[in-house]
Amino acid sequence: MAIRAFVFDAYGTLYDIQSVLGKVEGACPGRGVLITQLWRLKQLEYTWLRTCMEDFADFAVVTRDSLVYALGVAGIEPTGALVADLAEAYLHLAPAPEAWATLRALEGRERAIFSNGSAGMLAALVQNSGLGGVIEHVISVDPVRVFKPSPKAYAFVEAVTRIRPSETMFVSSNGFDVAGAKRFGFRVAWVRRSGAADIRVDEPGPTAMFKAQRLQAEILRADPDHVVSSLLEVAELR
Amino acid sequence: MAIRAFVFDAYGTLYDIQSVLGKVEGACPGRGVLITQLWRLKQLEYTWLRTCMEDFADFAVVTRDSLVYALGVAGIEPTGALVADLAEAYLHLAPAPEAWATLRALEGRERAIFSNGSAGMLAALVQNSGLGGVIEHVISVDPVRVFKPSPKAYAFVEAVTRIRPSETMFVSSNGFDVAGAKRFGFRVAWVRRSGAADIRVDEPGPTAMFKAQRLQAEILRADPDHVVSSLLEVAELR
Repeated sequence: MAIRAFVFDAYGTLYDIQSVLGKVEGACPGRGVLITQLWRLKQLEYTWLRTCMEDFADFAVVTRDSLVYALGVAGIEPTGALVADLAEAYLHLAPAPEAWATLRALEGRERAIFSNGSAGMLAALVQNSGLGGVIEHVISVDPVRVFKPSPKAYAFVEAVTRIRPSETMFVSSNGFDVAGAKRFGFRVAWVRRSGAADIRVDEPGPTAMFKAQRLQAEILRADPDHVVSSLLEVAELR
Repeated sequence: MAIRAFVFDAYGTLYDIQSVLGKVEGACPGRGVLITQLWRLKQLEYTWLRTCMEDFADFAVVTRDSLVYALGVAGIEPTGALVADLAEAYLHLAPAPEAWATLRALEGRERAIFSNGSAGMLAALVQNSGLGGVIEHVISVDPVRVFKPSPKAYAFVEAVTRIRPSETMFVSSNGFDVAGAKRFGFRVAWVRRSGAADIRVDEPGPTAMFKAQRLQAEILRADPDHVVSSLLEVAELR
């Protein structure tokens, strides 16, 4: 069955979340890596916990809460001004280097972003990154008030695109997202970039979070349809 | 309103999950701390993800999956024999030093464990630790097929104890559990032991996961009724 829609995760897939590192390091010298990585880990954790607790909050709230946590761990006072300044970086993330070319190559099919981000955050992100012209749909979980990987979240994509999951290729670099999308019923491509975001744990060799990215979807028995090392390969999938 | 039931979380609250460390270090010299801590972090993460994905699995499965992950990160081949041997440690966890005295002091009220653990794991744990004589109810999430902090999980407690949440004191050291139980409607005591389980991140001073334990419930806006530094204080709550 032909693929009629390509739906991309935003944070970590179409956009480089590590691109906030420079700004964080500038504000918190010597602690940028620690803060940036903990921020992301807690951001994900809070989305999962809020979905479990049936207590949804706008992703902007979750993003600030997790930043407050990460700053606290790093021993930095999370003042309102600092939190607002750093959280604003999420509206100016760099697209993955191959994002534009990939979306351009998919012209003629429906191209969408589907993200935990709030509608406001995603609108700003797409505008600031200049990808608006090569994307038909920017879809937030906001209206269903539940985060990925809930099947209720993925089900909302079809409500917008009007294209069935079996004709939709969902693309994500996040293992939990791959697992959730596949369980839901999408066709799924897992983007496993080499040199992915990592967190240092006291061990030599490849770091723990890098391996987490590598292992997680496997352990959750996701069984994606495709594993690619770059977004560009996605454009060749049929 | 008088408290008629005291309901304790098991892993990390009534039982010391770090007590597996010796066994893990024995099997994986020099990597015991890393493996033990990652094991627990991933164990929690997989329960949250499975609840979000509406794909429940027995906690024994989750415990093995997360151990496979932790071993992989540490560069150790997760053979079936090694995984079975280490996972078995969860049936022989040491009770917290003050667990027996606390439960004994609560005699006359309903005393319960409520845990993500499977019925089989909990039965073995209670038997092996000798706490069976001072606990009326050992309650697993198994029948509702969802993990904490889902409100559907907490609601199952009343179905067993026949005591209303407003007359039930829920006791946990896990921040996410405190947040979920309080949102559900229990009276909640948060056990914040000093020197709690930690994971080392490359920073000086108190470690990241220790601070995570400290901060998490606050950031999730849990607002517990009581914060205690030892289980023994729970026996004095009215």
